[in-house]
Amino acid sequence: MLHKPGVTESLAQNIVATRWEDIPAPVRHQAKRSFMNFFAVALAGCRTQPVEIALRSLSEFSGGKQVTLVGRSERIDALSAAFLNAAGANVYDFCDTHVRTVIHPTAPVAPALLAYAELRPVRGADLLLAFILGNEVEDRIGNAISPSHYNRGWHITSTCGVFGAAAGAGKLAALDARQMVSALGTAATQAAGLCECLGTAAKSASVGNAARNGLWSALLAEKGFDGPPEPLAGVQGFYSVLNETVDLSAVTDGWGDSWQIMATSYKPYPCGFVINPVLDCVLDWRRDHPAEVVTAVVVRGNPLLAIRTDRPDISTGRESQVSVQHAVAAALVTGKAGVEQFNDASARDPQVTALRGKVEVLRDESFSTIAAAVDITTADGKVHKLSQTAARGSDVNPFADSDLEAKLRTAAAGWDSSHDITPLIEAIWALDQSADVSKLASLAVLR
Amino acid sequence: MLHKPGVTESLAQNIVATRWEDIPAPVRHQAKRSFMNFFAVALAGCRTQPVEIALRSLSEFSGGKQVTLVGRSERIDALSAAFLNAAGANVYDFCDTHVRTVIHPTAPVAPALLAYAELRPVRGADLLLAFILGNEVEDRIGNAISPSHYNRGWHITSTCGVFGAAAGAGKLAALDARQMVSALGTAATQAAGLCECLGTAAKSASVGNAARNGLWSALLAEKGFDGPPEPLAGVQGFYSVLNETVDLSAVTDGWGDSWQIMATSYKPYPCGFVINPVLDCVLDWRRDHPAEVVTAVVVRGNPLLAIRTDRPDISTGRESQVSVQHAVAAALVTGKAGVEQFNDASARDPQVTALRGKVEVLRDESFSTIAAAVDITTADGKVHKLSQTAARGSDVNPFADSDLEAKLRTAAAGWDSSHDITPLIEAIWALDQSADVSKLASLAVLR
Repeated sequence: MLHKPGVTESLAQNIVATRWEDIPAPVRHQAKRSFMNFFAVALAGCRTQPVEIALRSLSEFSGGKQVTLVGRSERIDALSAAFLNAAGANVYDFCDTHVRTVIHPTAPVAPALLAYAELRPVRGADLLLAFILGNEVEDRIGNAISPSHYNRGWHITSTCGVFGAAAGAGKLAALDARQMVSALGTAATQAAGLCECLGTAAKSASVGNAARNGLWSALLAEKGFDGPPEPLAGVQGFYSVLNETVDLSAVTDGWGDSWQIMATSYKPYPCGFVINPVLDCVLDWRRDHPAEVVTAVVVRGNPLLAIRTDRPDISTGRESQVSVQHAVAAALVTGKAGVEQFNDASARDPQVTALRGKVEVLRDESFSTIAAAVDITTADGKVHKLSQTAARGSDVNPFADSDLEAKLRTAAAGWDSSHDITPLIEAIWALDQSADVSKLASLAVLR
Repeated sequence: MLHKPGVTESLAQNIVATRWEDIPAPVRHQAKRSFMNFFAVALAGCRTQPVEIALRSLSEFSGGKQVTLVGRSERIDALSAAFLNAAGANVYDFCDTHVRTVIHPTAPVAPALLAYAELRPVRGADLLLAFILGNEVEDRIGNAISPSHYNRGWHITSTCGVFGAAAGAGKLAALDARQMVSALGTAATQAAGLCECLGTAAKSASVGNAARNGLWSALLAEKGFDGPPEPLAGVQGFYSVLNETVDLSAVTDGWGDSWQIMATSYKPYPCGFVINPVLDCVLDWRRDHPAEVVTAVVVRGNPLLAIRTDRPDISTGRESQVSVQHAVAAALVTGKAGVEQFNDASARDPQVTALRGKVEVLRDESFSTIAAAVDITTADGKVHKLSQTAARGSDVNPFADSDLEAKLRTAAAGWDSSHDITPLIEAIWALDQSADVSKLASLAVLR
């Protein structure tokens, strides 16, 4: 009888077989863009409270100073670094988004690979290849269960990200297909994360774990730690246990014909992805109008906008990142939507708080997640009708390379305006030429 | 408006408010029995392959030699020790069982508390109280979703165990109710584990994580790491996202009227809980009959017996622990059902393998999980009808204290027959008198 490989085995074989030569130039370039965005958001989040607390706690248990923490002078063991860099990169909801799944693909994968690259020598091309494959795996695993998985309340960046980190780290470790299945199995049994935790420090636990546990799954598999033959599609596997509606063909069909990373969007604003088109509208309008005249705002968008971000009453910066009411109010009051519009002070600003109460959210199935319409009513009774069909930075209205460089420069300057971040930018664009990427993250260390 | 506490807040308040004085003497004694059983199973599992690999890997990242590993001379950081001691205690499926949920309650909780007790001074009575509360929390959280959660394929020991570890460690850390809600929230977003991994090393990852991540959740909450107000019953919380049928009243109703730990059963055999009554039948029969005459065996039991353990074709010791065919065959061939009957050699024994093919499993809703019937057909055409209504060691047919002592002595002698384990046995029975339990686990270190 011929052996018919299962879904997980087919996926593993694809990961193992794909070479740098198989990756088209635009895909390679997109991977560099994702690293540029990663360092921007990781710098923005590297000193936030969840990272500070987790670092203080992990330091009590960690050995060695193996790996760089983005933006910080401390170093820590590789597993803890993967956790902390992932948590920091995602804490502001400022990271990249795979539109179809709403996965933030880079936060769980890049930190796992950068940690690995400080343990053992890794060439730039190998880092990019592993990163592209990690993206591919987490996004494809997510495609098979979207939108039902995220809508149910699973924090899909965490639950699928652990597979991406395992696949990418497993690629760097040159696992064979059997070991790769084991790595994906150990990742599957660690898949966790609840959207209930959005807006709190606990969100960072599942995102950090996705990177840490994915990396660890690959390292364990390398040492012979085995798992079941079909962790994804088995009767009691990931898809059956965590999901209702599954399209298994999405996992491997058409592998290599196109690459999921090309569907990545990068955010201009540090808040929930679905809020971005709303802010495009509000900031455009605000350029020519004062906030004082606003009497009511009605936001219309994809149901996910209301499901995830209809939060009129919030009190912390982290909550503010997943409140469309706050985002609209803060953008109207200040005319901006940067990190300062989503901190504790902004969340408690009396002017912003008052305006939040005037924002209503409506669900409309006809909108995609990158589109929104905003009606602003002013004191003169006039209704200003605004709309955005494709949010800035989304895959169909993409950031220029210079926009991404600017995002990184802004994030670095936010901590230390004297730090020259140009060497990091140049190193990212030259990643495919690098013989050893172990010093890459150290260029993002601000003193 | 009066504040009406949510499910998680009520649970947290109960954990915080319960004192040692509230715990009846039989419950205190049962906690000691669970520790006795814990050290037996942790010793049995402490040098198995999953523990060896995980220890080798974690040692690369760990700092300090904070905490004892049961049965081993190595020491490691507290989080890693919690992982490894939990993984080792559960690896043989030899640990205790909360019958209604089929949770193995001690493996995730005891290692978290013992690790804590080597970081900071803990009195014996406080250890027992935290342990009883950790049991109570994981079992009650599991009661609300049993049997659907485990039947779906969730590894309930892992998914609910992380709450028990968080609650117990949080009690030792004297968290207030608000911090306890945060600890349970960070635990909720780390709840993971798939039954698909049973019989492989990957199973140990989720059990180890339950202890490690539960402990870490409590330590993070103590430092101000917050979570959502209703991680259990929130719209996108643990119950809604991981479950279909939930009885929320099971979480807090009647708190303190009785204690879940009294429904713990202890296993005589190192294999899946549901196999135990089958082995009672087979071993009784085998005492007076040779294996050679057996031509067919039909096993009848609760549907869970077939769902979890109908595995006629297995090749490793770990798989053998969840194969009722193997258990029956090995017990018939050797007349025993100890650790040696569930190792790789036994799994590959030709005589055992041949007999496995003669064992059939039938589902019968009328059986409880602690009951089974076995029909053994012999070469003379005779059918020997055997049955067990309450497995030995189960809550209604309990082990004597001396049985538990003997189980611990056997496990210790299995590694080192010259090691005197009596001081550990005496220390466990005297736990409530101990002023500092930091040396307890070191009595289980075999040189």
